[in-house]
Amino acid sequence: MILFTSDYTEGAHPLILEKLQETNFEQTTGYGTDPHCENARRLIREACSAPDADVHFLVGGTQTNATVIASILRPYQGVLCASTGHINAHETGAIEHGGHKCLALPSADGKITAAQIKEAFVEHWADESHEHVVQPGMVYISFPTELGTIYKKSELEAISAVCHECGLPLFLDGARLGYGLVAAEELWGSCGENVTMADLARLCDVFYIGGTKQGALFGEAVVISNPALKKDFRYNIKQGGGMLAKGRLLGIQYETLFSKPGEESLYISMSRNAIRLGGKLRAAFAAKGYPFKVDSPTNQLFPIMDDSTIVRLAENFGFESWGRVDEGHTAVRFCTSWATREEAVDELINAL
Amino acid sequence: MILFTSDYTEGAHPLILEKLQETNFEQTTGYGTDPHCENARRLIREACSAPDADVHFLVGGTQTNATVIASILRPYQGVLCASTGHINAHETGAIEHGGHKCLALPSADGKITAAQIKEAFVEHWADESHEHVVQPGMVYISFPTELGTIYKKSELEAISAVCHECGLPLFLDGARLGYGLVAAEELWGSCGENVTMADLARLCDVFYIGGTKQGALFGEAVVISNPALKKDFRYNIKQGGGMLAKGRLLGIQYETLFSKPGEESLYISMSRNAIRLGGKLRAAFAAKGYPFKVDSPTNQLFPIMDDSTIVRLAENFGFESWGRVDEGHTAVRFCTSWATREEAVDELINAL
Amino acid sequence: MILFTSDYTEGAHPLILEKLQETNFEQTTGYGTDPHCENARRLIREACSAPDADVHFLVGGTQTNATVIASILRPYQGVLCASTGHINAHETGAIEHGGHKCLALPSADGKITAAQIKEAFVEHWADESHEHVVQPGMVYISFPTELGTIYKKSELEAISAVCHECGLPLFLDGARLGYGLVAAEELWGSCGENVTMADLARLCDVFYIGGTKQGALFGEAVVISNPALKKDFRYNIKQGGGMLAKGRLLGIQYETLFSKPGEESLYISMSRNAIRLGGKLRAAFAAKGYPFKVDSPTNQLFPIMDDSTIVRLAENFGFESWGRVDEGHTAVRFCTSWATREEAVDELINAL
Amino acid sequence: MILFTSDYTEGAHPLILEKLQETNFEQTTGYGTDPHCENARRLIREACSAPDADVHFLVGGTQTNATVIASILRPYQGVLCASTGHINAHETGAIEHGGHKCLALPSADGKITAAQIKEAFVEHWADESHEHVVQPGMVYISFPTELGTIYKKSELEAISAVCHECGLPLFLDGARLGYGLVAAEELWGSCGENVTMADLARLCDVFYIGGTKQGALFGEAVVISNPALKKDFRYNIKQGGGMLAKGRLLGIQYETLFSKPGEESLYISMSRNAIRLGGKLRAAFAAKGYPFKVDSPTNQLFPIMDDSTIVRLAENFGFESWGRVDEGHTAVRFCTSWATREEAVDELINAL
Repeated sequence: MILFTSDYTEGAHPLILEKLQETNFEQTTGYGTDPHCENARRLIREACSAPDADVHFLVGGTQTNATVIASILRPYQGVLCASTGHINAHETGAIEHGGHKCLALPSADGKITAAQIKEAFVEHWADESHEHVVQPGMVYISFPTELGTIYKKSELEAISAVCHECGLPLFLDGARLGYGLVAAEELWGSCGENVTMADLARLCDVFYIGGTKQGALFGEAVVISNPALKKDFRYNIKQGGGMLAKGRLLGIQYETLFSKPGEESLYISMSRNAIRLGGKLRAAFAAKGYPFKVDSPTNQLFPIMDDSTIVRLAENFGFESWGRVDEGHTAVRFCTSWATREEAVDELINAL
Repeated sequence: MILFTSDYTEGAHPLILEKLQETNFEQTTGYGTDPHCENARRLIREACSAPDADVHFLVGGTQTNATVIASILRPYQGVLCASTGHINAHETGAIEHGGHKCLALPSADGKITAAQIKEAFVEHWADESHEHVVQPGMVYISFPTELGTIYKKSELEAISAVCHECGLPLFLDGARLGYGLVAAEELWGSCGENVTMADLARLCDVFYIGGTKQGALFGEAVVISNPALKKDFRYNIKQGGGMLAKGRLLGIQYETLFSKPGEESLYISMSRNAIRLGGKLRAAFAAKGYPFKVDSPTNQLFPIMDDSTIVRLAENFGFESWGRVDEGHTAVRFCTSWATREEAVDELINAL
Repeated sequence: MILFTSDYTEGAHPLILEKLQETNFEQTTGYGTDPHCENARRLIREACSAPDADVHFLVGGTQTNATVIASILRPYQGVLCASTGHINAHETGAIEHGGHKCLALPSADGKITAAQIKEAFVEHWADESHEHVVQPGMVYISFPTELGTIYKKSELEAISAVCHECGLPLFLDGARLGYGLVAAEELWGSCGENVTMADLARLCDVFYIGGTKQGALFGEAVVISNPALKKDFRYNIKQGGGMLAKGRLLGIQYETLFSKPGEESLYISMSRNAIRLGGKLRAAFAAKGYPFKVDSPTNQLFPIMDDSTIVRLAENFGFESWGRVDEGHTAVRFCTSWATREEAVDELINAL
Repeated sequence: MILFTSDYTEGAHPLILEKLQETNFEQTTGYGTDPHCENARRLIREACSAPDADVHFLVGGTQTNATVIASILRPYQGVLCASTGHINAHETGAIEHGGHKCLALPSADGKITAAQIKEAFVEHWADESHEHVVQPGMVYISFPTELGTIYKKSELEAISAVCHECGLPLFLDGARLGYGLVAAEELWGSCGENVTMADLARLCDVFYIGGTKQGALFGEAVVISNPALKKDFRYNIKQGGGMLAKGRLLGIQYETLFSKPGEESLYISMSRNAIRLGGKLRAAFAAKGYPFKVDSPTNQLFPIMDDSTIVRLAENFGFESWGRVDEGHTAVRFCTSWATREEAVDELINAL
């Protein structure tokens, strides 16, 4: 059985385990105050060209989303997001548990537009009874989205401009950030529509650099650019259960991910494997005539298959159902990752 | 200026004020433990043919919704409702403030169906990752809905049956209950599809009998039929800020509303005025050729008008905008109520 | 049976009922946007010498406390208060339901001191692990306190100064404000230690003028002096269930309470009755040799009585138990109010 | 610099790192559904003689406490605990953020008694206005406590009996469980007052076996004995941000901790080191004449030292301040752990 169910089916990059081994008996203080965290913060600020950003490490994505959003909104405010957004669809109501409504905007491909944000904002304030309606207080987008799609730089710039105009902090969920950055570079590097971490630090008020799905054991690095959002953020982390006692584990992982064994950081080079093998698999699906539920250029692929094919493939491969399409067909999700082996992909392609 | 903006533009029925005056210097204990509340509870149980129901009095609708829902759901559960439902659309996120997601079902006319509830329930449990999704924990419907529409008895029976089958408590928001009951009787009394308070007590786990929009100064009477939902409800009321110190004010109002100066309770007879004048106004809109945004048989009417007519009418009449329909046309809401005078309606009709 | 159980055993001052009657068929818009509310706001601003203050009307005390506190604190902050404070002891955890910890300071008489506040603040920030501890975010005091005691002007000035120094908004719960103001005037009017509404508007960031226990049917008027706390407060009210549809009921009551039938406002003149008869009763308790649990100069009295006296008095008089003192003795609470009749007090005195 | 600041200054036991290395490229499904978690659950059920218990793995202690408590309480209920309890004192209000009040009972040594619980319960229900007070809904205790103390078996049995009698689920925080079990065995093994995991599974409704402070990288294993508390617990975990994507990391660590390289589990044998060296250090403090703030038999020691000694020791050793005792003296905390080296302890002893 070969699993393509997600990008967290393996452990971590061997360099991370090696570093954990090497530092195991160092004594450090807890909660992210150790030298490894400090070093990792420095590396991330450099990668983001954001010398003044605050960088914090949390354990997982749902926790990070809930913590960031709780730190920004006032009680009567909600967060604008795609209806497919992770916070709206797959976090068991963690945002509502924290008191806030997800203001879901319709989205077929996981993305939302600057125009949608503007319209929601204008509509709220134009409503005479707006005090009876949850006030839009910030914007949440994912890069890549939950459907594997990515924003062009110009799209992000438009969103960022609208957010600033409306006074809505922009928060970007980068649980799979590396995969998105590499895909954007390959697609749009030549036309300048690609996106860099520095772009994100400039365009977002706060975003995070995912570790869990990107080859760390676990961990998400929050980068806060907007000074107004920095105050007391560590209290929020602690309250939300995200302040790891052995915080060094996060520092050690991120200093490894942002080290440069070659020309570029391990974080980026690891992501290339997922994008390359994702591309190979996408081409094979297309060549075999499978349509896609959504056109994803990253490491998550959503081919639509007939039931008998699904049953047949499921004997040897793991993948997830992504919703019934019609009588007889279902969309499924295949993920590649930093850890995917080319032979595994070839085996799957042969079985298609 | 004559206001048709809502059904709470006047004070209260004169008999209520008279009773307040008459009892003003009685000394009673607080928080709903007085004889007037006890008497009102008895009258309501009788009107509902529900001798074992618990009856509680709260101050307003948003508070009542938030309190009932908080008392039922576990933290990871949400409430199924129409997208147009008051809890989803017009309570500034009070339900989310209490920690719960509104699981909005699409609705064009404010109603949801048994089939929609069943489908949402089945879909949740069929999802392999359902633990990552808010679990449907109860159902909220309004009678009449926020768009003035009402359910037939058979529709409520189907909803109730599905709710029982799925283990989802059914909660009915009766902020304008009297108007709905009278309209149902007039429309369907002859075919048996009308609805009575006894039907609601039998079909719902909990519902409330609105006072604020029905001729009381304020107040909502919660009727809990399901014994499993009765425990400690008064703690919930107190925590939610709904336990009025001078609780007798609610008892006095409800014993007046449920007294029978004639053949039927004041609550029902007052509602007849709104339905009769609503009908007269509806016929006049139709005769003048105004289409309706939604076909409401109750006291809220939603004609679609061109902008110049709206501007002209607004000089002498109050009414609310209910959303742009197209370039040049807007849906507006006109409400009648227990207090509406026939001359006011005639004046409006003449001005159409 | 004559009740001294609380100051909300009767309805409302007759002038309030008269005004409700008189305005009953006026048509007004809802939610506090009507002319009566506007007029009441004006009168309150005048009484507070605070022309720039925002004034809002809510229904009850627990709701008001929860709403004000939710509007001020960030999620990881708590509210410093006396251990006996209403929010800590008698609101069924409404503040915690809103996500915040009551940071209770020890208090024997219901009051806290500037020194206690300063110490709690300093201790928090001196703690190396302060990020693991709820951060003090505001201060709550009651005037009079839940034990009937009141602050001198100099005490309030010291508290206010410390709050400003520490950046902690000061919120004063004036559920029984009139009784406190009149008592302070009688005790300290000659030495300048009395307190006026203008003092409160100057010294507090936000406070409220209680109606429910002061002769209104219900209602609390929130006065926000600090401009930073004004933004979007109506959203908070709506979310907390405190935005009365027929908001005019609050406006009508407060314009009556702040009208001046004679030299002073009805609000103050009504309070004098409670303080005068409270004083008569206090003197009688003392003359009979009953010690007091706490030395209250307002309308709540806490004599300590032996069990047989309590049983005997309970045959004809209502009062509340306030905690066992020793084997054989219990503290009890007797309240006078705006509505207390002198004959009732005399009857009680004769029975002592 | 040698750190005695906490029991989480190092990484993890080498066998854990080895196992992570060994399993790194296994492919598994996520969120705790993998074979390692299944195996770890089996081992824990065995160690607890609780074949029917549910076992769940979460990441950290604050998260675990918040999740368990949110899963048990109704909105108006609070959790009885020692005033020194971690949930009350050191979790930045995570419990209140979830909507619940910590009902703190006074405690000098970190423990509470069956009598205190009973009294709080009786007092609540005896209060005529109990609906206005947070209802005790469960009990939280720590073993060892935050002050290093432990309960005798008979004390736990008495607490458990009272909890059952009052219908209050008993939740035990075992963040440092191994240290407590070993200390109890050494102190009371001969008289039968020691405590085992099987005792805890029998006496508690739910408890957890700490990993973070006991030689894992991170992780806490929740054991639910009471069938009524098992339903849907995974939804609570996900909502609280505790459902680790690579859940296997927790399974791998706990199967290692509960493996038996010798006669007993690694979990217990690792704890012995902390207790043995803690004992050596305690004896040295005593021999030098330092009094203790509290008499702790486990791995946390709280000697009281004069300021000059503290300054001197702080040059070479890390430890934490635990509160000013008087002018010139402060209580400090020294921790040993599974990782403490004997030479480090000797060096400290020589420096005393």
